[in-house]
Amino acid sequence: MVIALLTDFGTKDYFVGAMRGAILSIDETASIVDITHEIAPQDIRVASFTLRACYKNFPAKTIFVAVVDPGVGSNRRAILVETANYYFIAPDNSLLGFIFDEEENFKVYELTDEKFFAAIVSRTFHGRDIFAPVAAHLSKGVVPREFGAQIKDYIHEKTNKPRNVSEREIEAEIIHIDRFGNLVTNLNEKDLPENFTIKLNGTIIGRLQSFFAEADTGELFMIWGSAGYLEIAAFQASAAERLGARIGQQIIVTKL
Amino acid sequence: MVIALLTDFGTKDYFVGAMRGAILSIDETASIVDITHEIAPQDIRVASFTLRACYKNFPAKTIFVAVVDPGVGSNRRAILVETANYYFIAPDNSLLGFIFDEEENFKVYELTDEKFFAAIVSRTFHGRDIFAPVAAHLSKGVVPREFGAQIKDYIHEKTNKPRNVSEREIEAEIIHIDRFGNLVTNLNEKDLPENFTIKLNGTIIGRLQSFFAEADTGELFMIWGSAGYLEIAAFQASAAERLGARIGQQIIVTKL
Amino acid sequence: MVIALLTDFGTKDYFVGAMRGAILSIDETASIVDITHEIAPQDIRVASFTLRACYKNFPAKTIFVAVVDPGVGSNRRAILVETANYYFIAPDNSLLGFIFDEEENFKVYELTDEKFFAAIVSRTFHGRDIFAPVAAHLSKGVVPREFGAQIKDYIHEKTNKPRNVSEREIEAEIIHIDRFGNLVTNLNEKDLPENFTIKLNGTIIGRLQSFFAEADTGELFMIWGSAGYLEIAAFQASAAERLGARIGQQIIVTKL
Repeated sequence: MVIALLTDFGTKDYFVGAMRGAILSIDETASIVDITHEIAPQDIRVASFTLRACYKNFPAKTIFVAVVDPGVGSNRRAILVETANYYFIAPDNSLLGFIFDEEENFKVYELTDEKFFAAIVSRTFHGRDIFAPVAAHLSKGVVPREFGAQIKDYIHEKTNKPRNVSEREIEAEIIHIDRFGNLVTNLNEKDLPENFTIKLNGTIIGRLQSFFAEADTGELFMIWGSAGYLEIAAFQASAAERLGARIGQQIIVTKL
Repeated sequence: MVIALLTDFGTKDYFVGAMRGAILSIDETASIVDITHEIAPQDIRVASFTLRACYKNFPAKTIFVAVVDPGVGSNRRAILVETANYYFIAPDNSLLGFIFDEEENFKVYELTDEKFFAAIVSRTFHGRDIFAPVAAHLSKGVVPREFGAQIKDYIHEKTNKPRNVSEREIEAEIIHIDRFGNLVTNLNEKDLPENFTIKLNGTIIGRLQSFFAEADTGELFMIWGSAGYLEIAAFQASAAERLGARIGQQIIVTKL
Repeated sequence: MVIALLTDFGTKDYFVGAMRGAILSIDETASIVDITHEIAPQDIRVASFTLRACYKNFPAKTIFVAVVDPGVGSNRRAILVETANYYFIAPDNSLLGFIFDEEENFKVYELTDEKFFAAIVSRTFHGRDIFAPVAAHLSKGVVPREFGAQIKDYIHEKTNKPRNVSEREIEAEIIHIDRFGNLVTNLNEKDLPENFTIKLNGTIIGRLQSFFAEADTGELFMIWGSAGYLEIAAFQASAAERLGARIGQQIIVTKL
């Protein structure tokens, strides 16, 4: 089966290699696929955005292993979430909050049965010692209930939604900056009126484009991004650099 | 079959994960291999160099998917190129120009049949919505002609070749700088006389080595690189840094 | 079979793609897994640390290909090391020294039979022309002895071990800095007394934690890392930045 990995481990260390090895030691036929290992250290929120933006592209029964885990070794729990189509394995730190927000039917299991873990479990690297082996056992046919009991009190921190701050203004924010410097906002189509402008760091942007090459090089514009959110972009340039933007920064939408 | 990916998507976002998922959703047995996703944003020329430098190392029938695509969403076409040994899927923006330059027999098809695309095609991410699904269908046995009609007017921008500027001098240029800071020129063995020096940014280099460790640490020299081009290098140091070199910069060859 | 790659080739060039292609051209069923390609250029020592830290996580019979190779093209030898569980292919430059230090039974073969190499062997890229094809032939069932004769005079540079410099003090060093800025020392549990402090760049650290989240954000502490060495860390911060630490830097352990 397909096991898709998302971590903040980077690619220069032995961490990801150790996880891949741990999976293959249990299920040598697993098809290991990387989403990314370049989540900024401990950035649970961007990890959540990134996994949410692509998991539906994967085949049914894909096992996602998402490890951004500042609480590793503490008493934070490890969980397995089963939805109609997929499995998700992660620390219980709201990384999988988008499933709790958006999916209709899902079950959450706490990973407790140590016979599916590494023989010695370190207190600093559960990616290798718990999450990878559990994914491989799941891939080999172990059913979710065998890993531990179903729980209801998993952690679910709500993400900030855009909110009306006056009759004409909506407050929203930047939730991700991609490699091209495009700024991803938390605005969905349903949040927005027909005509609007956006203000960020004092700059007002009023042009909404349907594709990148419509603009002149460097020009700022809005565009519906491929993850379903409104983005602020610049053709063949970085909107983030042009605007000095950061993740978490506030933007104001003004209805026209 | 082997599907080899080359993009400028970077590895920190969901982009490459989404492409891999889209491929596996159609052909779960595809063997997905990365060439690189670290092409500088929109740098079609370096993408073309990179793919040209390694495609012949892959097994026959490999499907290459190359997405560096500043024109995504505009009326630029998407193409499939079939050669005697390989398939190449890319935007029609001359990224595949090296095939048109160097291969004897090839056919170019425009990708138009939407039944091989994602159900909803975004205007910003054809890597996920067109190129990946087409590659997966091709891997499953769809024949090239089914994706669209053969075309002859594909875009083919000639790359700069070295040229004689006087009886003793050839003008050439830097076409790539690798991770080690080695400068790859556009000079093939047939472009060069038996004895020559090279001048770049005022520095003259006369020594031609056959391997790196022949030099002293930091010393500048010329060497035949593994992509078939003359390179300027420094042993255990970056020639790019030593010379302040950039891609596209002119170099002068002087025959001795 | 599983072929696991570790190099200093980076991921922006054609180098790793060419290696993967060269393997698949010989054994299209090989399962190629990356450990890392982000070893700092020519840093044999960190390459050795990284491979040592994760190879035991891989399934039996995994073929490791480790290419950090400043001597490529010179008369340095290429070797294949066979242990009870694994195969290792690398230049003969002590990258595999941890096996010679730690394994009981192993055999070292020099790679000399050119029929297992690329048809044309460059003098700058043996990763593609020698190491990858040999790994693929090994994966297909060629036995080690066929690649060349067994040798005993392989290069084995001992790594620095912690040493007692006075009755109460041990001199050790930083051998790796990971992506999170954690400092990995060369201290094993057996090197250390029950109670001790560490001094680095004038800062004394006395607290030993069992997991990261035990500390306050930014606080410096010691922790047993997942590779088996004592590490210096800071919770949700970079110890390397806090201490201005570098690889190779001396640390002093004081027994309490």
